[in-house]
Amino acid sequence: MSGYFDGVPHITYEGPDSENPFAFRHYDPDRVVHGKTLREHLRFAVAYWHSLAWPGGDPFGGQTFERPWFGDSMAHAKAKADAAFDLFTRLDVPFFCFHDADVRPEGDSFAETRRNLEEIVDYLGQKMERTGIGLLWGTANLFSHRRFMAGAATNPDPDVFAWSAATVKSCIDATHRLSGQNYVLWGGREGYETLLNTDLGREAEQAGRFLSMVVEYKHQIGFEGALLIEPKPQEPTKHQYDYDVATVYGFLKRFGLENEVKLNIEQGHAILAGHSFEHELALAASLGLLGSIDMNRNDYQSGWDTDQFPNSVPEVALAYYEILRAGGFTTGGTNFDAKLRRQSLDPEDLVLAHSGAMDVCARGLIAAEEMLEDGGLEAARAERYAGWDTPEAQAMLQSDLASIANRVEAEGLNPDPRSGRQERLENYVNRFI
Amino acid sequence: MSGYFDGVPHITYEGPDSENPFAFRHYDPDRVVHGKTLREHLRFAVAYWHSLAWPGGDPFGGQTFERPWFGDSMAHAKAKADAAFDLFTRLDVPFFCFHDADVRPEGDSFAETRRNLEEIVDYLGQKMERTGIGLLWGTANLFSHRRFMAGAATNPDPDVFAWSAATVKSCIDATHRLSGQNYVLWGGREGYETLLNTDLGREAEQAGRFLSMVVEYKHQIGFEGALLIEPKPQEPTKHQYDYDVATVYGFLKRFGLENEVKLNIEQGHAILAGHSFEHELALAASLGLLGSIDMNRNDYQSGWDTDQFPNSVPEVALAYYEILRAGGFTTGGTNFDAKLRRQSLDPEDLVLAHSGAMDVCARGLIAAEEMLEDGGLEAARAERYAGWDTPEAQAMLQSDLASIANRVEAEGLNPDPRSGRQERLENYVNRFI
Amino acid sequence: MSGYFDGVPHITYEGPDSENPFAFRHYDPDRVVHGKTLREHLRFAVAYWHSLAWPGGDPFGGQTFERPWFGDSMAHAKAKADAAFDLFTRLDVPFFCFHDADVRPEGDSFAETRRNLEEIVDYLGQKMERTGIGLLWGTANLFSHRRFMAGAATNPDPDVFAWSAATVKSCIDATHRLSGQNYVLWGGREGYETLLNTDLGREAEQAGRFLSMVVEYKHQIGFEGALLIEPKPQEPTKHQYDYDVATVYGFLKRFGLENEVKLNIEQGHAILAGHSFEHELALAASLGLLGSIDMNRNDYQSGWDTDQFPNSVPEVALAYYEILRAGGFTTGGTNFDAKLRRQSLDPEDLVLAHSGAMDVCARGLIAAEEMLEDGGLEAARAERYAGWDTPEAQAMLQSDLASIANRVEAEGLNPDPRSGRQERLENYVNRFI
Amino acid sequence: MSGYFDGVPHITYEGPDSENPFAFRHYDPDRVVHGKTLREHLRFAVAYWHSLAWPGGDPFGGQTFERPWFGDSMAHAKAKADAAFDLFTRLDVPFFCFHDADVRPEGDSFAETRRNLEEIVDYLGQKMERTGIGLLWGTANLFSHRRFMAGAATNPDPDVFAWSAATVKSCIDATHRLSGQNYVLWGGREGYETLLNTDLGREAEQAGRFLSMVVEYKHQIGFEGALLIEPKPQEPTKHQYDYDVATVYGFLKRFGLENEVKLNIEQGHAILAGHSFEHELALAASLGLLGSIDMNRNDYQSGWDTDQFPNSVPEVALAYYEILRAGGFTTGGTNFDAKLRRQSLDPEDLVLAHSGAMDVCARGLIAAEEMLEDGGLEAARAERYAGWDTPEAQAMLQSDLASIANRVEAEGLNPDPRSGRQERLENYVNRFI
Ligand SMILES: [Co+2]
Ligand SMILES: [Co+2]
Ligand SMILES: [Co+2]
Ligand SMILES: [Co+2]
Ligand SMILES: [Co+2]
Ligand SMILES: [Co+2]
Ligand SMILES: [Co+2]
Ligand SMILES: [Co+2]
Repeated sequence: MSGYFDGVPHITYEGPDSENPFAFRHYDPDRVVHGKTLREHLRFAVAYWHSLAWPGGDPFGGQTFERPWFGDSMAHAKAKADAAFDLFTRLDVPFFCFHDADVRPEGDSFAETRRNLEEIVDYLGQKMERTGIGLLWGTANLFSHRRFMAGAATNPDPDVFAWSAATVKSCIDATHRLSGQNYVLWGGREGYETLLNTDLGREAEQAGRFLSMVVEYKHQIGFEGALLIEPKPQEPTKHQYDYDVATVYGFLKRFGLENEVKLNIEQGHAILAGHSFEHELALAASLGLLGSIDMNRNDYQSGWDTDQFPNSVPEVALAYYEILRAGGFTTGGTNFDAKLRRQSLDPEDLVLAHSGAMDVCARGLIAAEEMLEDGGLEAARAERYAGWDTPEAQAMLQSDLASIANRVEAEGLNPDPRSGRQERLENYVNRFI
Repeated sequence: MSGYFDGVPHITYEGPDSENPFAFRHYDPDRVVHGKTLREHLRFAVAYWHSLAWPGGDPFGGQTFERPWFGDSMAHAKAKADAAFDLFTRLDVPFFCFHDADVRPEGDSFAETRRNLEEIVDYLGQKMERTGIGLLWGTANLFSHRRFMAGAATNPDPDVFAWSAATVKSCIDATHRLSGQNYVLWGGREGYETLLNTDLGREAEQAGRFLSMVVEYKHQIGFEGALLIEPKPQEPTKHQYDYDVATVYGFLKRFGLENEVKLNIEQGHAILAGHSFEHELALAASLGLLGSIDMNRNDYQSGWDTDQFPNSVPEVALAYYEILRAGGFTTGGTNFDAKLRRQSLDPEDLVLAHSGAMDVCARGLIAAEEMLEDGGLEAARAERYAGWDTPEAQAMLQSDLASIANRVEAEGLNPDPRSGRQERLENYVNRFI
Repeated sequence: MSGYFDGVPHITYEGPDSENPFAFRHYDPDRVVHGKTLREHLRFAVAYWHSLAWPGGDPFGGQTFERPWFGDSMAHAKAKADAAFDLFTRLDVPFFCFHDADVRPEGDSFAETRRNLEEIVDYLGQKMERTGIGLLWGTANLFSHRRFMAGAATNPDPDVFAWSAATVKSCIDATHRLSGQNYVLWGGREGYETLLNTDLGREAEQAGRFLSMVVEYKHQIGFEGALLIEPKPQEPTKHQYDYDVATVYGFLKRFGLENEVKLNIEQGHAILAGHSFEHELALAASLGLLGSIDMNRNDYQSGWDTDQFPNSVPEVALAYYEILRAGGFTTGGTNFDAKLRRQSLDPEDLVLAHSGAMDVCARGLIAAEEMLEDGGLEAARAERYAGWDTPEAQAMLQSDLASIANRVEAEGLNPDPRSGRQERLENYVNRFI
Repeated sequence: MSGYFDGVPHITYEGPDSENPFAFRHYDPDRVVHGKTLREHLRFAVAYWHSLAWPGGDPFGGQTFERPWFGDSMAHAKAKADAAFDLFTRLDVPFFCFHDADVRPEGDSFAETRRNLEEIVDYLGQKMERTGIGLLWGTANLFSHRRFMAGAATNPDPDVFAWSAATVKSCIDATHRLSGQNYVLWGGREGYETLLNTDLGREAEQAGRFLSMVVEYKHQIGFEGALLIEPKPQEPTKHQYDYDVATVYGFLKRFGLENEVKLNIEQGHAILAGHSFEHELALAASLGLLGSIDMNRNDYQSGWDTDQFPNSVPEVALAYYEILRAGGFTTGGTNFDAKLRRQSLDPEDLVLAHSGAMDVCARGLIAAEEMLEDGGLEAARAERYAGWDTPEAQAMLQSDLASIANRVEAEGLNPDPRSGRQERLENYVNRFI
């Protein structure tokens, strides 16, 4: 164990009346809600990058965090892993997630970098075995190094495509090795800064082919986790290709991959694209693409990805409602792709950021479960669309404009609008939150 | 002739040195630019609704315009048509566009409304014949009347679906009758106000079936114009299903309609969705969906659809550049779906808004043509992606992750980034504007 | 009584376990929280305009609501007043608010309009006496009629200034007559559509003089309520002069009115200006300008003033926290300047929208009171700034750059940053919500 | 000379027909426009930080630029200064701007850091003398180092206030020494991340006192340049106190500093605050606060400060129009606080970014001058407000509500709205661009 968190207690459930900041007030991991424990429902994961590797910089200032494991050697990487599992253990989370670049130092060549990864993967594997903590997903960082400045798969330089392909291979291998439940692709710089130097069509073809190779490789090695794309509309680039759920759906359809790839949906990216988080989740569910979530929030008023820990129970509840309505997580889970505020310097800040977020999620999930059980929203929805369930309405759907027009005139149809009852439904939701 | 515009001169080309506000300074309709006249390139259309039918209201105030033709009778409708063609003639535009609700009074029944439309369509047909002005596209207003408050094709009430289908039939008939070049569908209220009462999946199925019927009907009656969907992300609703080009592409692919329907892309809607206009145009072109444009601008800082007449040559030039690069308009054209500011009360304001916009478009198109002819952007792009044109790169695209990874290590690949030259290209563009 | 709401029950408190949609679950008006009843803390008011007078239109569609009192006669105005007080009574609100244009028909001349207002004010006065319902504030509608299209006090036409001044006089008279607790000015069209035709400096002078006259008139007639400006940054205009709290403060300072006028702060307008609601409240409090609130929310993702009923307890709690920290309302209160969604057609929708919002506010206020009582935030804040409470720090504030610089070097000062503890504080807040 | 730019030509004026990318096509520095040369009108400055010191990082990736002068020693600082003046010379700009942190390495103590600054200031002074290049303004970087993470003057720790005060002293001294024309304060972290830990009122008092000390010190040492505050609404923080022009005006009035401090207005910050650049300029001019400008643009669709080089002539023209209307620059100038895109790796990119921007500014300024000379906008404005120039209107302004109301009724006033002519004026502007 690392020592870094020594002054910070392990977080355990004490119930809603506890005033102890270092306790869960709502997340009782073993509480059973409609047949599953909260642990099984929520499937929490900590993201290695922000929680362990991020130094606290922003565009106007550098490092604020002073972590003893910051540094470029393999020894630093192991110290970081020690601290990571210390943190995971104190939070009692069942999963973590990582990029290659989070866990190993970059070597002087691709081969050395790969060997560094393999070494640390062994080390992580031992820790996972010892603690029972699993890997929710692995991924490759194809955006931080300057070689990726113009994209990875969509780079104008085929050598960068090659480097990226080789990197993804090594990361799927690592994920497979650690029995990861999913493998995620976030196209951090798959997009453009200016259309003036960009060939959209060409880059889409590259991206389609790249993803197809990933799918092929997954099957080749027998990786049984899900492949997930994480949409984001912009930032760092002016325009990112995996803009939102609807855009990625179109991309998958175009390349015939809609049955091979699902989505990892992040609240912050949803709202940056102009959608509510629950919209993106409901849409993904309706398209059969719902995979996993990044449960970090953006500030609605800051136009960049603030990646804050969630703190709004009503928002989180609506998100879990869509997830539960779609059947809950299978391979997916609740990952915190969230950054501490850069002024939150202390070890306890890192612990409390997670534990508070876990409590918010637990409250939201419980509210969502109760709402689903009560059935009020689904009943109202069913009643609103009931007209469509008649044979006549279904027959009309199979008919044609001319015969419908005839009927409209023949029957003197004049439809009368009915209340949408939005406020009544909003009140209803507030009963559960 | 209506008399309304009597004090306003016909607008003719006087050249860039003219100080006459009632003249074109750049739009010389007969000037040939690379094999086509400006009239043929630009294919201007005036939108009946905003220019003739809009009373000047906004959410905080009512009518400001006092047009003698405002009123609900057939006589008013004909007076409006008289004024419309007087305006079109003064501007020398080759096309106009209309919704059913713009041109005819609503009757007491669907049948009466349809007959009103047919009568006014005859009247419009005569005027078109007399003036040589064509119909760029017709469309149906499925959003203003309260019956559409919860959508048209996606309404929870199948009777509203029926009414909408019958209406679209009557509008395609009208468009066909007037030899319209296209038929447009704008899903003004196809979307939702709250997800709480909405079944996204069900509504998408309804919309898919509706559009399929429209496609079938078009073929049935032999209408040879293009069908166009006009994307918009939100407003009036919280979320509109035809969010942007990428979203509509996914929708078309889902229902197998991607070869049957193209897009009418509006600047204002593009930027409301977080995209540049040229992005939406380039993307549509790359997907084979580029149909026609609504050349009105939104204020980037007002979060609603301000639908102003265009006034920025640099923005317009980049838009036409994408259109020309894709081969220029075929059935499509440049429609002004633009509202006068509600304080622009005078007849001359209406004329000058259009003539100024036409001049802006002409300058933009000429700049775009010259830039395309010069070839600087295309050369830079070709050079940037040149690495992909080698047999090795193409072979890699057909290979797999493992063999690429082998090569990366075997060859010790270490790609070196190259400048994207954004500012240099921006300077280049400014040479032409 | 109007009959319109006959099928809708009076709303009474039934406690948090009630499943009756027509009950308060949290708003127990007589519950005492730290020395005041919830009724006295919250001081709810219903806005006449949206709840009684708004027809349900938006920029893409007209009237959806069918209220029997819609119409232009004095009889309609009285029927509307009957319905209004029926609604207020069913909700048991202590206050309402109105514009002149909400309550009386426009006459053919200013004088007739004024007489209409006086007649209906008598009628309202009788109802107020009978029901015990008070007037939170009156105001003048200086934005709907086309005469105000270019502003009221800031109009380029001095006759519009005159009309506006006369209108405000009649509205202050009406407010005074009805013992209004405040008089509000919202500069609906005090701003501009285009800077090209606008003289900012001139318009500011007009606005300053106008407000000074209002202040003088208030004192002249002995109106003892507060004068309040309601900031809003834009919409309907491109730019509105009363942009936000900070802007109005500068305006008041410029014209020496900072001790005469306070603010009515709306959540929707705060966020449209890029601020959180609590920011605007805290800033106003720190400047001595906190007057009253409009507790309607905007959708963070719709760029226009959606004016929805509040439904987020966490947001409302933070707002009331700032209000309570500043001492609570004196003349001000909680007004719902909120529109039903236009699909909410039924009488019960109107009632439930308010009652649900009142419950949300009650929960928020109670949470805020408990948090203030607990003192955790104030203690953390005091501790964070404690360094400033030393005599040395206070002395430094009264010194000068050179002597501070000397001390920095002499003492080898090297300040060490301390954690801002944001997540810990966010967790703390969630204990109370 | 540094050698770094050796392959890049000096940029000279070749006229609008030049196709040489390394030439000015519009910026002829010696061209006289209405009595001043373009050099004197525009007063270009290069910002040291972005052009010389920025490594090309963004929140998702690190350094992309490889400058030989990057490093922490005094030798590096001098190499950077050599390169800087080489760049300035190639561009033939009359001015530059710097922060202390741009030009000198940080020492181990405040005193050492100050001595480093003094040494490099000497070095810069020699270069300025040799080249004739002046200092437009100096400033202090009070935001990059972690000690400033919670603000400088508004920090909860008085020692950070002290450090900041000492730093500003050293930077004013440096600016004075180098005959800077202005001294700028940008409150990079004067604001907050969360209101929960913030005392707005207390921090405003600290900021007011800090600024007063700066004013006192300026007078004490006889620095005759202007003091300028640079407003920005947010980023890096959630809320920055110097939000926009109106906010800073209120702040200055509050502390009685409105005659001591002017503004440095940046396009990017204007639009981040929801204003057009020309709005901020016109407002500042009307309040007597117009000082200098940062002529970099933000992308309207990226919600962070993109700080791109300007490329839109129409936007730039409207900005210079307001500046010229207010009398043009006195101590101020046109600073490029602009970042190369991080993919623009080559030395020539840095040169071309500036030279293209200078050309855009020259075109804009010339258009603005011609428009002002032509007088069309001013004539239209004068005519629009002409009603206010009558003695009756002026008398009304000095009267009171009651007598105005009497007159409205007595005269049966009924003002008729007049066209605002927005589109006509927009067309007019386009004649000059
Ligand atoms: Co994110
Ligand atoms: Co994420
Ligand atoms: Co539009
Ligand atoms: Co349109
Ligand atoms: Co509002
Ligand atoms: Co309000
Ligand atoms: Co900036
Ligand atoms: Co700046």
